[in-house]
Amino acid sequence: MSLWDEIHEQPDTVRRMLDSNRSVAGEVAALIGAADTASVVIAARGTSDNAARYAQYVWGSRHRLQVALATPSLYTLYQRPPRLDRAIVIGISQSGESPDLVAVLREARCQRRPTVAITNHPDSPLAMVADLCFELESGEERATAATKTYTSQLAAVALIAAAMGGDYAGLSRVADDVARVLASGEQIAHAASRFSDDASAAVIGRGFNLSTAFEWALKLQELVGICAMPFSTADFLHGPVALVADGLPVLAVAPSGAPLRGVHELLEHLRRDYGAKLAVISDDAQTLALAGAAIPIAPISEWLSPIPAVVAAQLFTYYLTGFKGRDPDSPQGITKVTRTT
Amino acid sequence: MSLWDEIHEQPDTVRRMLDSNRSVAGEVAALIGAADTASVVIAARGTSDNAARYAQYVWGSRHRLQVALATPSLYTLYQRPPRLDRAIVIGISQSGESPDLVAVLREARCQRRPTVAITNHPDSPLAMVADLCFELESGEERATAATKTYTSQLAAVALIAAAMGGDYAGLSRVADDVARVLASGEQIAHAASRFSDDASAAVIGRGFNLSTAFEWALKLQELVGICAMPFSTADFLHGPVALVADGLPVLAVAPSGAPLRGVHELLEHLRRDYGAKLAVISDDAQTLALAGAAIPIAPISEWLSPIPAVVAAQLFTYYLTGFKGRDPDSPQGITKVTRTT
Repeated sequence: MSLWDEIHEQPDTVRRMLDSNRSVAGEVAALIGAADTASVVIAARGTSDNAARYAQYVWGSRHRLQVALATPSLYTLYQRPPRLDRAIVIGISQSGESPDLVAVLREARCQRRPTVAITNHPDSPLAMVADLCFELESGEERATAATKTYTSQLAAVALIAAAMGGDYAGLSRVADDVARVLASGEQIAHAASRFSDDASAAVIGRGFNLSTAFEWALKLQELVGICAMPFSTADFLHGPVALVADGLPVLAVAPSGAPLRGVHELLEHLRRDYGAKLAVISDDAQTLALAGAAIPIAPISEWLSPIPAVVAAQLFTYYLTGFKGRDPDSPQGITKVTRTT
Repeated sequence: MSLWDEIHEQPDTVRRMLDSNRSVAGEVAALIGAADTASVVIAARGTSDNAARYAQYVWGSRHRLQVALATPSLYTLYQRPPRLDRAIVIGISQSGESPDLVAVLREARCQRRPTVAITNHPDSPLAMVADLCFELESGEERATAATKTYTSQLAAVALIAAAMGGDYAGLSRVADDVARVLASGEQIAHAASRFSDDASAAVIGRGFNLSTAFEWALKLQELVGICAMPFSTADFLHGPVALVADGLPVLAVAPSGAPLRGVHELLEHLRRDYGAKLAVISDDAQTLALAGAAIPIAPISEWLSPIPAVVAAQLFTYYLTGFKGRDPDSPQGITKVTRTT
């Protein structure tokens, strides 16, 4: 299986994950909703860390949960793990192999806190150490760059949120939204072709889609060798905007929702005052019109938009590997499983 | 006052902050150490967010506290603030003006949680809404790029840690350590001169100095227009390492301490296998020897090393503005106070 195949498999992998995990999602939701849970701590690295960012906003906004990202080196290098009083601890990892993530969950068990592993490998060390395993069932991911396991992680986070609120409506259509993005490959290829000479880019988003900006940037780094810097649009005003004055292109994830107005105004400002070169993933015609490279997606509830939006970002990146003369199936220097301690 | 002056004022500003805030540091330490505190949530943006990253490791490792970074847009854009059960909420901001940070502290008050403002402006909205104000007393910061207020924020975090543990020994010498870095300007200028043709860089660190890597990258973006990407050395193995194969220079913060061995091995690998162009801030002779651009600092306890290390990074960046023909006192496109909502 090539990266191309795995990207295109996503309507199936997302649908399968959602269909087969309602029961375990209910169990995780019950743990998180328990009276003595005050917060959620998530341990993750790389792509999975971006799924954790998504969980911060989904579980935060829909269920008013304080969701923190763990600092694994406190558990391993420094051997000074924080007290996890009243926290539920969740590890997210495609392989379930990384020793530092296993160490965070093991410590949580020692502190008698509930633990959950969200992984593609139910026989992995991470799954073994957790009270509950949420299996992604994405099938083996062979490509070095994670794609289908990322959308399955996002769908898992969304399914747990749906189980907390009993609201499955939008979620049942999200696989179709992914299929619709995949059907617009030609338009996405055209957008990507405009960036074949760029060596760097800023990637911006806010709220639910801050995760998408981080994941798009990571794919561009891994697959295309582009110096891609992800930012919240709020932080972007603090300094990095200076780079745009020098010609840095800006890629934005801007679907309809609470952050859209602010993102739109920022993009307008960047275009008007700096002549910025823009690519935009959005369902909003006015925002798409700001960009030389417009990547339309179908309208969707904001909280679910990171799933189709990141598929558009994956395809954009895939096509760009071609325009840059790179092999998407053999990115340089990286291995599939990293065993950080 | 120019940026140069403010960088060189730091031994005085750090010393003054430490001398005049023992009492308020004790009050903050008492709040954090209270029996019903289970975690700390910090709201910050830009440079101040990097001081928050430092607090995650200092308070985490020394006092076993779970320290989370707030997601301000949940409080403002989405108007769905998380429950802050058993958390103490701290806002860090030079100006104390940013409405989204004020919103986080105001919500914490509504939830009857204790709040602290760490700011240079005790009459600012952030200070007004907080139960306790920890005043940085850095004097007015005129340069757009924050330097002296950042080291004062780090020293404030360290002073609160010292108050929790009653251990002030290393802290009283840290202003001298900063002065020693400033005295080695010529060597740092020489290191910076090697990067005058580079448009991008990765900046890496881990643990306590992850904050330094993020702040160094932000200064390079703001002042020099370099596409600088900060990474934990653990995450660096997940993909961005591919960029080094293409010639991306790597700047590393690697003082003695728990992460040094791993950072050293990574740098050795990058040099041997990719011929990577390296700059290293360290007190370790063997690690400095790996780098074409060596930036030595004096030995210091790891937990305090981010204070002198970031001053070395500031000077490096300052000199690089000169080699790049930039005006460090008028960076393009950015304003001193950002009012994100």
